[in-house]
Amino acid sequence: MPADDRPTRPRLTPAMADLRRAVRASLEGLAPDSLVLVALSGGADSLALAAATAFEAPRAGLRAGAVIVDHALQDGSAEVAATAAAAATGLGLSPVEVRRVEVGADGGPEAAAREARYRALADVASATGAAAVLLGHTLDDQAETVLLGLARGSGPVSLHGMDAVAGLWRRPLLGVRRETTRASCADLGLEPWDDPHNDDGAYARVRVRHAVLPVLERELGPGVAEALVRTAAQLREDAEALDHFAEEQAEEVADHAEAGISLDVRSLAANPAALRQRLIRLAVASEFAVTLSRAQTLEVARLVTDWHGQGPVSLPGITVVRTGGALHFAATGAS
Amino acid sequence: MPADDRPTRPRLTPAMADLRRAVRASLEGLAPDSLVLVALSGGADSLALAAATAFEAPRAGLRAGAVIVDHALQDGSAEVAATAAAAATGLGLSPVEVRRVEVGADGGPEAAAREARYRALADVASATGAAAVLLGHTLDDQAETVLLGLARGSGPVSLHGMDAVAGLWRRPLLGVRRETTRASCADLGLEPWDDPHNDDGAYARVRVRHAVLPVLERELGPGVAEALVRTAAQLREDAEALDHFAEEQAEEVADHAEAGISLDVRSLAANPAALRQRLIRLAVASEFAVTLSRAQTLEVARLVTDWHGQGPVSLPGITVVRTGGALHFAATGAS
Repeated sequence: MPADDRPTRPRLTPAMADLRRAVRASLEGLAPDSLVLVALSGGADSLALAAATAFEAPRAGLRAGAVIVDHALQDGSAEVAATAAAAATGLGLSPVEVRRVEVGADGGPEAAAREARYRALADVASATGAAAVLLGHTLDDQAETVLLGLARGSGPVSLHGMDAVAGLWRRPLLGVRRETTRASCADLGLEPWDDPHNDDGAYARVRVRHAVLPVLERELGPGVAEALVRTAAQLREDAEALDHFAEEQAEEVADHAEAGISLDVRSLAANPAALRQRLIRLAVASEFAVTLSRAQTLEVARLVTDWHGQGPVSLPGITVVRTGGALHFAATGAS
Repeated sequence: MPADDRPTRPRLTPAMADLRRAVRASLEGLAPDSLVLVALSGGADSLALAAATAFEAPRAGLRAGAVIVDHALQDGSAEVAATAAAAATGLGLSPVEVRRVEVGADGGPEAAAREARYRALADVASATGAAAVLLGHTLDDQAETVLLGLARGSGPVSLHGMDAVAGLWRRPLLGVRRETTRASCADLGLEPWDDPHNDDGAYARVRVRHAVLPVLERELGPGVAEALVRTAAQLREDAEALDHFAEEQAEEVADHAEAGISLDVRSLAANPAALRQRLIRLAVASEFAVTLSRAQTLEVARLVTDWHGQGPVSLPGITVVRTGGALHFAATGAS
């Protein structure tokens, strides 16, 4: 590589190139002159994302700003936010907004912080008319999400991982390893902030990061994180296809009665198990806004697959009976 | 629990009850007086299975025997086999057959041993007219299989795990933990053989067993193995449903030409990605007996989803072109 003759501009390293390529792809399709906001914590992932976005957005005819959410959960969080804001400004991002939020307690500390963060980001996006908010989740985060889902065992849904694009939110770095964002920061002379929460073993995600994934990579080969993410992508496709077929069939199979909803037994029986279960779950969700567990769904399905004249199935607030070639779902107590 | 007044018959412990319940469920549906064979290595899993089968089979109106395969790979393997055979006879199983096999080298030592083992088991089943061969795979084996599949990242197929019933083969213990088979042997006063291969870190499965699953259970909770298995069962259902739909549609979408096969672009485009990819893989498998990788399948799919007049796609020995609303697959070089 020839010596860089413009010392004020860092030489393009492989890590920087990976980040920029990922951001470039993620910005595709946005209307000219749109504003994109980087959700910046000051950590290596979002800082590297901010730097790459500051470089790529203008070249794609876009404007780029940053939002720093101060969760006010740790001493000195305002300083951390101010340092991150200064870094964003230094990278040429504008506007740069710091939002201090109050984190509630609903659903535990992690969920409450996430809820407050996303609401603040959406507020700033709305106030500034931003077309997209870029989030710094990496391939490592995605692999951790998949492993956590596996550990819960709540089925295909829990394995999906995070979306690369979902409405306002874009995650350009889902194909980039965390070590690459760290390398990119180092190459750019940027000093990331290390969130002490990231080392707190009280969080399952932290234990996956520090204890589980490294063991998997050591024992089964260094490609495990990528393999998890690749598999999750295919499983998501499978689940989406089946959700699509279930929605297509739902109207045909279901009959909205005065009290509740009925499903045609013959149609349920003719479908493979995965679709039959989705049709049952969909009917209950649409009619009663109740999400059935797998065990509950299978119990209802047995009225189709293992019918021997058994009595009603009781679900939370709902009673299911089979009569006259149909399953009837009604609020318990309703006639 | 009252003291057992028949000291020659062991008291029924929870572990023994779990094993017997699992075997009882697995024997359902077999014709009266059928012979079932236990595949016995002498290890805790198959020894506990043999004991439970010796107890349950007569009560279900069935006969029960055992097959011990001597892989002749270790010094003293003939003695291990003879000891296992004696244990089987002691449990009242009959016939008890020992088969010494020659393990080849195709596909590596594990695959070659498996191949030789299953062939010997099928041979004995055929010679004795057995209706089923019971295999001692446990929930732990199933969880290991799922983790190994995840580590390969070869998609939904690799996550399926083992079948509870597949033709001749039945796996009664897929819902039973390995610790329960060990406890059952101890309760019965049976001494299992410990295969030294089970501690050989050269095998990925052994590393999963001793290093990976224990870490997952320690860091994420003791229900991880069960969660993996539960998730795998649901993923299997999803994949089976999509395979079913793909096979249903294959005839409609495909057109067998003189040289090769054609797929209708409009039908491929109208289907969700998971089904489109299965239709492509199915066409190539049926016409050319070639299994496409995900990357290859996606490259072909882009002729549908990202069409901008691009040239042919080259697959191993196959060329794919899009013309006149169809994808044409032909052997490379064929006109």
